[in-house]
Amino acid sequence: MLRNDQLDEWDRENFFHPSTHLAEFARGNVPNRVIKTGSGCHITDRDGVKLLDAFAGLYCVNVGYGRPEISDAIAEQAKELAYYHAYVGHGTEASITLAKMVLDRAPGNMSKVYFGLSGSDANETNVKLVWYYNNILGRPEKKKIISRWRGYHGSGLMTGSLTGLELFHKAFDLPLAQVIHTEAPYYYRRADVSMSEEAFVQHCVDELEALIEREGADTIGAFIGEPALGTGGLVPPPAGYWPAIQAVLKKHDILLIADEVVTGFGRLGSMFGSFHYGIEPDLITIAKGLTSAYAPLSGTIVSDKMWKVLEEGTDKLGPIGHGWTYSAHPIGAAAGVANLELIDKLNLVENAGTVGAYFKNALNEAVGAHANVGEVRGEGLLCAVEFVQDRDKRAFFDASEKVGARVASALLEEGVIARAMPQGDIIGFAPPFCMTQAEADEVAGKLGKAVKSVLG
Amino acid sequence: MLRNDQLDEWDRENFFHPSTHLAEFARGNVPNRVIKTGSGCHITDRDGVKLLDAFAGLYCVNVGYGRPEISDAIAEQAKELAYYHAYVGHGTEASITLAKMVLDRAPGNMSKVYFGLSGSDANETNVKLVWYYNNILGRPEKKKIISRWRGYHGSGLMTGSLTGLELFHKAFDLPLAQVIHTEAPYYYRRADVSMSEEAFVQHCVDELEALIEREGADTIGAFIGEPALGTGGLVPPPAGYWPAIQAVLKKHDILLIADEVVTGFGRLGSMFGSFHYGIEPDLITIAKGLTSAYAPLSGTIVSDKMWKVLEEGTDKLGPIGHGWTYSAHPIGAAAGVANLELIDKLNLVENAGTVGAYFKNALNEAVGAHANVGEVRGEGLLCAVEFVQDRDKRAFFDASEKVGARVASALLEEGVIARAMPQGDIIGFAPPFCMTQAEADEVAGKLGKAVKSVLG
Repeated sequence: MLRNDQLDEWDRENFFHPSTHLAEFARGNVPNRVIKTGSGCHITDRDGVKLLDAFAGLYCVNVGYGRPEISDAIAEQAKELAYYHAYVGHGTEASITLAKMVLDRAPGNMSKVYFGLSGSDANETNVKLVWYYNNILGRPEKKKIISRWRGYHGSGLMTGSLTGLELFHKAFDLPLAQVIHTEAPYYYRRADVSMSEEAFVQHCVDELEALIEREGADTIGAFIGEPALGTGGLVPPPAGYWPAIQAVLKKHDILLIADEVVTGFGRLGSMFGSFHYGIEPDLITIAKGLTSAYAPLSGTIVSDKMWKVLEEGTDKLGPIGHGWTYSAHPIGAAAGVANLELIDKLNLVENAGTVGAYFKNALNEAVGAHANVGEVRGEGLLCAVEFVQDRDKRAFFDASEKVGARVASALLEEGVIARAMPQGDIIGFAPPFCMTQAEADEVAGKLGKAVKSVLG
Repeated sequence: MLRNDQLDEWDRENFFHPSTHLAEFARGNVPNRVIKTGSGCHITDRDGVKLLDAFAGLYCVNVGYGRPEISDAIAEQAKELAYYHAYVGHGTEASITLAKMVLDRAPGNMSKVYFGLSGSDANETNVKLVWYYNNILGRPEKKKIISRWRGYHGSGLMTGSLTGLELFHKAFDLPLAQVIHTEAPYYYRRADVSMSEEAFVQHCVDELEALIEREGADTIGAFIGEPALGTGGLVPPPAGYWPAIQAVLKKHDILLIADEVVTGFGRLGSMFGSFHYGIEPDLITIAKGLTSAYAPLSGTIVSDKMWKVLEEGTDKLGPIGHGWTYSAHPIGAAAGVANLELIDKLNLVENAGTVGAYFKNALNEAVGAHANVGEVRGEGLLCAVEFVQDRDKRAFFDASEKVGARVASALLEEGVIARAMPQGDIIGFAPPFCMTQAEADEVAGKLGKAVKSVLG
């Protein structure tokens, strides 16, 4: 058996980790952690350290770790047929079944699902489909994509452009020219503190209208947004935001892409964020919750309205020139079927709603009154605590103080994984849907301790 | 158990298949095929039809179907830990081991591997790294990527732009402006038939030099190429091509990306195409052969030269803003380790070389003398037969005659899967590396019959 020091050496010599300080990691100044196994909300590393993962990996292990229902399905599929492609009408029982299961759960106006691997590649597919759609409709200029500042839609070139966070733009020459950004629906960080929630929604609408006016509606193909902001801060939208935004998009014949990578399949306590907020998208991006990350799989759900035009396109031009070798990979499809069945069987969507409400309350009780806590927010099992230097003046800490990262580290010392979000001092929580009230209490209690140790 | 007609209905109602004529599929005019299982070079569908897959899925099931060594490794990993992320120094025993195994096999000047999911996303990573590298070096203008016509590098927006095939551009507004194309290293299709192979290489060099001159070397970041053209026609390069091209790139300080998605891990009879043709890349793209498609996994191998600059970048800017949730997914990593071990154990790289030579010879004997066969070509287990209307005049068929597709259909009737390549009348063969001489003879013999039935 490999020794830990051997693995450490191999790791630093060979492995390019994502989102890592490469030089500090190579120098040994960033610790590595080799994860060995997991069960429910807990993971255990190779040194025997057991941690409560209150971020479910990267908010994706929605059903929790160590589910034999899914690992058995993967094992069986791997044995029977690990791979065949899905091009030109090929499929497997699992991929076809999953396509039906996705459509059964999606909004009624949805027609088909294209399977990819990651949220990034699904959004890449979405942009391609928007462009193709408008080309077929004879509107070749209608191509720009509007995204929101603080949106997260991937880290490719186009998808990192859609993402509205500095970290993903700087030194990468992003955003690309085809992407334009509008106001983040982030009420707590509104520029004018005196603004009411209702006025702030109107402000978001006005900003969007002004952007469309400036660019010309006939140059704009689509608007993309997460039902509730994810990596940008875990922020539920202000009341009335989505209906107001949709009215603008409809008026200008701009397609709406709901990026449900984080919210799809239950995180907010509804099967989709689109149901939760009354969104009527033309395309829906799905990934993480589709398989609870047991195997890579993503998807683009296409509405009837767009599908008709795509069909028309292939009648005009022949087979559509889009596909990944691993589209609808059998292992991912088998994991997806087992995962969605398990979510139903254990009533996990409902649990995300009820435990989520309980958890938000527990967080509030634990740290809500702290002088450096500006906001405790959440919807379902997507919760966050935002820290400020001065609560009354809503004055933020200087980024160099790394308050968020320090609180996350202190919490890790207590045995709980949460995520310091990349822009602002925000601790994010997005645990598995099977989290119990006792675990919710444990996380909240330990957060209280961690905050005290860092901020007094 | 689900009935086939039920699956057929679900399939047509819900499943958006890649590279498919969507309207004809929905109308039931394109057959579907539900694959059930596979073993060695054969797959079996749900109707009980058994086929010899001489294209290894999409040239990716390199070790063949039904290998318990890999499916057991997947099953074990799924049970132990299906997922944890690889961000900020996290890993698993499998992902770290695989990183070392990849570097042990790669050219000596390679330093680290970043794991993604698909060849497309790995090339996306490559372009991001080229841009980041030149930003850190203070050369913000040096960003364009040169690709070749008929290259295949993915079907995303950037990667589809790198791809030099019409099917992937039309109606998608590609290529993006950052990508420019140069001559395909496709000797058989040279414009001037009288040109010698040596003169054609010089012509490719001259075209490249002229393009660099026109655009300005200080605006060009990298050149990307497959060691042997894949989807563009399965074409080994003319003798001397790579050293001549590399000399030009070095002179102008242009990085070289070797896209080894098809050639990596043995298809040409060498571990990498880079060894086979004496290529010295700065980045290597890997995917298909890394796991033989048993689970999705791709990679970007980064040279020492680039890695040093990436480290410098994170010292300047902090953690690198790039990552996929499923980077280094444990299931893919476990499949990769088992796959590379199996390739060694069964000596499959060598087998690809020897059976490949035998197979090319068999193809030549079967159809090489046919009046409509322009060329039988290949290297290792990457072979193709190109059809022409007039062999002496090298006159091609009109695309509307669909000669390639008709021959592939006739061959399928005989029980053999080959691929009609998308541009030209070219039948591609890229079987699993475990193909036997008897199977090679069978494929060649059946191709002979198929050609006769279509072309007389």
